[in-house]
Amino acid sequence: MADSQNKIYDLIIIGAGAAGLAASIYASRYKINHLVMANKLGGQAAWGHLIENYPGYQSIAGQELMDKFVEQVKKLGAEIKSVEVLEIIKQESGFLITLRGEEKIQTRSLILALGTEHKNLGVPGEKDFWAKGVSYCATCDAPLYKNRVVAVVGGGDSALTAALLLSSYAKKTYLIHRRDMYRGQAAWQEKVMAAPNIEKIFSTNLTAIKGDQVIREIVLDKPYQGAASLKIDGLFVEIGATPSIYLAQKLGVALDAQDYIKVDQNCETNLPGVFAAGDVTNQTHLKQILTAASQGAMATYGAYQYLNRDKR
Amino acid sequence: MADSQNKIYDLIIIGAGAAGLAASIYASRYKINHLVMANKLGGQAAWGHLIENYPGYQSIAGQELMDKFVEQVKKLGAEIKSVEVLEIIKQESGFLITLRGEEKIQTRSLILALGTEHKNLGVPGEKDFWAKGVSYCATCDAPLYKNRVVAVVGGGDSALTAALLLSSYAKKTYLIHRRDMYRGQAAWQEKVMAAPNIEKIFSTNLTAIKGDQVIREIVLDKPYQGAASLKIDGLFVEIGATPSIYLAQKLGVALDAQDYIKVDQNCETNLPGVFAAGDVTNQTHLKQILTAASQGAMATYGAYQYLNRDKR
Repeated sequence: MADSQNKIYDLIIIGAGAAGLAASIYASRYKINHLVMANKLGGQAAWGHLIENYPGYQSIAGQELMDKFVEQVKKLGAEIKSVEVLEIIKQESGFLITLRGEEKIQTRSLILALGTEHKNLGVPGEKDFWAKGVSYCATCDAPLYKNRVVAVVGGGDSALTAALLLSSYAKKTYLIHRRDMYRGQAAWQEKVMAAPNIEKIFSTNLTAIKGDQVIREIVLDKPYQGAASLKIDGLFVEIGATPSIYLAQKLGVALDAQDYIKVDQNCETNLPGVFAAGDVTNQTHLKQILTAASQGAMATYGAYQYLNRDKR
Repeated sequence: MADSQNKIYDLIIIGAGAAGLAASIYASRYKINHLVMANKLGGQAAWGHLIENYPGYQSIAGQELMDKFVEQVKKLGAEIKSVEVLEIIKQESGFLITLRGEEKIQTRSLILALGTEHKNLGVPGEKDFWAKGVSYCATCDAPLYKNRVVAVVGGGDSALTAALLLSSYAKKTYLIHRRDMYRGQAAWQEKVMAAPNIEKIFSTNLTAIKGDQVIREIVLDKPYQGAASLKIDGLFVEIGATPSIYLAQKLGVALDAQDYIKVDQNCETNLPGVFAAGDVTNQTHLKQILTAASQGAMATYGAYQYLNRDKR
């Protein structure tokens, strides 16, 4: 602890999803004295059931792919510190990072690979039944619903893949979407439409979640086959994500109108020495492991150039 | 032949390096009716000796990684056509592609993943001794030089990795660089500096290549240890690459001052329906398998949106 208090890193990467881990891989290759900080490993990617579009792997579980990233980071000699970052302050030269437990660490440059967080439905009962039947991670919880009845809310890739995964365990999976068509990839749409045990409910919103000790039913704003509510054993909320910008905002990093971190094509933010990569940035419209990892590499390349400029 | 003449593809991807292959993987996932055209598979990446910074693989030969990309493309049902494209013409709707052999194929959109080509030294003897000791691919030819003496020209990643690979076969490897420091990654620089059988020659240019049936010696513009020329058995030219823009230029795609294809962050060029990805574009300052593949995915996403807009 005393050691890291006195040490000044050249680069600290905050976040250990695809972007942060790829950034570290490149930082090690560039021999940048760096540290990865995260309170959890793998980011959103680790929640992905099956990844079938990461070039190099025909089909791999998100967690397994992220494990490979982590292993590679460690093999290259980088340290991943499991911590919660409380605050980042700009200093005369570099940045001071305060961790939970009051530990402080200094760095000359930063890559913010903060990722995104799941969106909530914001309906009555959602908080009460969280972990009592309400889940934001089909990959984690699907196996709990063998022969049960579940519902998924959403219409993007994560909702479609969640429904598909759940349909391989559950007796019946309702897929409830507020619009009349899905946003997700055509390949997933086709599979969903073909799955006999997925009941597709379009143009419908969920308005409340009810139960006792555990979730029992969900209320719809429009009757489905004559019923205003559906009896279920589990509910999976897959309606997208919001960028995790708390630390960035406090540091003074500029955000776009949707609260994503504004970066240029070198992943540099408005603050010199501060780079950002992955889902938290405004550059990646296509939010994928591949694109996040690519941004991580570019952010490190940017930091490398910044550090070398700085040294002169 | 008659079949493909009548068929109109939604997307044709020209190039089968990391960018083109990743574009196809995404196109298959998006169920886009497409075809990959290339005269060789794997692009520059396939020439890479050891790839140690592609997240997901700790260490893999470039050719092996590209083989995995190709396998994945085929597994997803896409066709890779081995052809030489002679010309692309804009038509009223879409594009007409002429192949060597006069075959013509129509498509509604295009991804140009044309890659780059090796730069030549442009010195006397270079053409004469090509494949007689002059090589542009250490990965391909290094094993031919067991216990021989070779030289590498260049100072970037490809030169450093070529020298390292060659040093594991050759008795002695000269690494000749025109500047006084390398451009390549610090990790490679360190390994090169530590290799006892790599002789590092800085601030020196090669002015001629001499020999008889095969290469015999190279002439330097500055004596090295008193000698104006070096006796060698093989010469590896690793001084960078130029974008392959012949087809793009003829089609009217806008280029930047260095002749790279100008694309926006969605990989769209100045021509509607024409996207570009990978090393041939002006977006990737960091030219890597990872960044090229990411651009391929983004180009497909762009094409997907273009095709859907177009359909309405």
